Amino acid sequence: MTRITVAKGDGIGPEIMDATMSVLQASGAEIQMDYIDIGEKVYVAGNKSGIDAASWEVIRKNRIFLKGPVTTPQGGGYKSLNVSTRKFLGLYANVRPCSSLHPFIETRHPDMNVVIVRENEEDLYAGIEHQQTDEVVQCLKLISRPGCEKIIRYAFEYALQNSKKKVTCFTKDNIMKQTDGLFHQVFNQIGEEYPEIEKEHWIVDIGAAKLADTPECFEVIVMPNLYGDILSDVAAQITGSVGLGGSANIGESCAMFEAIHGSAPMIAGQDVANPSGLIHGAIMMLSHIGQAKAVEKIHNAWLKTIEDGVHTLDIYKHGKSSTLIGTKAFAQAVIANL
Amino acid sequence: MTRITVAKGDGIGPEIMDATMSVLQASGAEIQMDYIDIGEKVYVAGNKSGIDAASWEVIRKNRIFLKGPVTTPQGGGYKSLNVSTRKFLGLYANVRPCSSLHPFIETRHPDMNVVIVRENEEDLYAGIEHQQTDEVVQCLKLISRPGCEKIIRYAFEYALQNSKKKVTCFTKDNIMKQTDGLFHQVFNQIGEEYPEIEKEHWIVDIGAAKLADTPECFEVIVMPNLYGDILSDVAAQITGSVGLGGSANIGESCAMFEAIHGSAPMIAGQDVANPSGLIHGAIMMLSHIGQAKAVEKIHNAWLKTIEDGVHTLDIYKHGKSSTLIGTKAFAQAVIANL
Ligand SMILES: CC(C)[C@H](C(=O)O)[C@@H](O)C(=O)O
Ligand SMILES: CC(C)[C@H](C(=O)O)[C@@H](O)C(=O)O
Repeated sequence: MTRITVAKGDGIGPEIMDATMSVLQASGAEIQMDYIDIGEKVYVAGNKSGIDAASWEVIRKNRIFLKGPVTTPQGGGYKSLNVSTRKFLGLYANVRPCSSLHPFIETRHPDMNVVIVRENEEDLYAGIEHQQTDEVVQCLKLISRPGCEKIIRYAFEYALQNSKKKVTCFTKDNIMKQTDGLFHQVFNQIGEEYPEIEKEHWIVDIGAAKLADTPECFEVIVMPNLYGDILSDVAAQITGSVGLGGSANIGESCAMFEAIHGSAPMIAGQDVANPSGLIHGAIMMLSHIGQAKAVEKIHNAWLKTIEDGVHTLDIYKHGKSSTLIGTKAFAQAVIANL
Repeated sequence: MTRITVAKGDGIGPEIMDATMSVLQASGAEIQMDYIDIGEKVYVAGNKSGIDAASWEVIRKNRIFLKGPVTTPQGGGYKSLNVSTRKFLGLYANVRPCSSLHPFIETRHPDMNVVIVRENEEDLYAGIEHQQTDEVVQCLKLISRPGCEKIIRYAFEYALQNSKKKVTCFTKDNIMKQTDGLFHQVFNQIGEEYPEIEKEHWIVDIGAAKLADTPECFEVIVMPNLYGDILSDVAAQITGSVGLGGSANIGESCAMFEAIHGSAPMIAGQDVANPSGLIHGAIMMLSHIGQAKAVEKIHNAWLKTIEDGVHTLDIYKHGKSSTLIGTKAFAQAVIANL
């Protein structure tokens, strides 16, 4: 039995978390849950960090955290819980696999199978902003050598362990010669320790264009935080739906798992959201804690559900062998296939 | 007669500029050219800015500049000529129309017709980087209210003049509340002066995903410099080729025109590059200086060439009604259709 912390989050968070937990429990995964409240409720109660001290304790103690999407309120002083969690727990690696499932899920990119490895603590996400004058504001982009080393080594190790043949690096080092330049330089240095893996570097603008157009050219792409944020959404979306991808946030001693997508307030409470992103986050969690049997069971059941044409709104194919189904019913269908 | 400054640039620059100039001259456009050297030659001669004082004088005097792509050398001290030109001439607006030309050019997005309006002077492109410690480097992202006002007003005016119904804004203001927050806030403020235009804002990650997946949802998108750099490459590429799009860099008194793509050294000197991006840059230039007749003539001749299936390598459709042709021959085909 592994004890994990679970937070439902905001927007569609509660629905997709309930769906995901029902699948996990039916799968026989050996986990016990501690539920905590984070996000809107906590913000509204006056806590500008969106999480209280007791909940931090639970997260720290359990070390494994399954998190629903959270909405940070607009306005001064509120902190993004996503960012604080990653920072406080030292979750330096954000791993986002994006694969298409042609022909069962419609996509313009039938052969894509790319993993975005996103640096998760530095860059503009350090959150150091200041007002210089009435009319000028600045934000600091921070890149450190140890930060680059950790994420780049992680990417190469991930490639080795997952039988990937190539690691690509995206930076904008023709403009940011010192910051992105350091990332690229460390990529070259660490790359030398992995002679069996092919290495390439693209300037992020043309790399992004290639990713959006021919994602099948990439296997593992490692990049600084902000590019990884933007391009993992792009990669997830073009597999067929941003609602499909899971995200693992890995640190030395803790790990947090979530969906790639956000809290989608516009469709919240309507039982239409696709819980697959969070289910994939949960699968990555089970794999991380060594529960290979449950991983295989859930993955196969999910696959069969999708292949049977049981589809939520985001991937529903009008007039083709596809049945439209809600969040809860989708989870039930997965459970029936376990 | 308008006197313009022309620089061929590096990589494929000379070939596509020669092709473009042959089309311009055959079109009867009323222009006279002053050629200057920029880029590699000048860098190699020891000038770390890639351009000499006399050339700056020519550019300033003529005010209209048609520029080929330039490669900035790796290593300390070299300045990107793209960035210096934009900064020294105050070219605050970078306009990048990306339209597909289905069925004549293969694309997964037959209905896209989006214009990226990219802020062109601020953001991380201010080039303020410094080493903090042995292991930590920083880059400043700078956003100013006047900078936001200029580019956002430009986007709305562009929309009005080009009969666009909607302007979208992309920022990451859930993380960068002060810098991107200012951009978003100014968008809302200036937007109020344009009640006839629909306004929307997307967080850049999910906005980018939507752009890559359903670009037909957007008309004009205004955004800070770096997002605009990345996402205009994405948008150009998914029209069918990054080799198609032109780019206008507009300031109060000067303007510079170029292709969206870079110098592509890997295919340089082979007569395979598509000159269409630079031809489109030149068309934007002629339109800017009021030569509507030449604009129409060149645009129609280009369109007919493409529709006739006369295609460079990047858009060649194997086995379909498409003839593969080189850079020079493509220009000749356009000229024959003038
Ligand atoms: C919600 C937001 C702070 C977060 C991020 O920018 O990292 C999200 O977009 C993500 O990618 O997990
Ligand atoms: C070459 C480079 C400096 C330039 C930029 O980043 O602006 C280019 O990518 C562009 O988009 O015009």
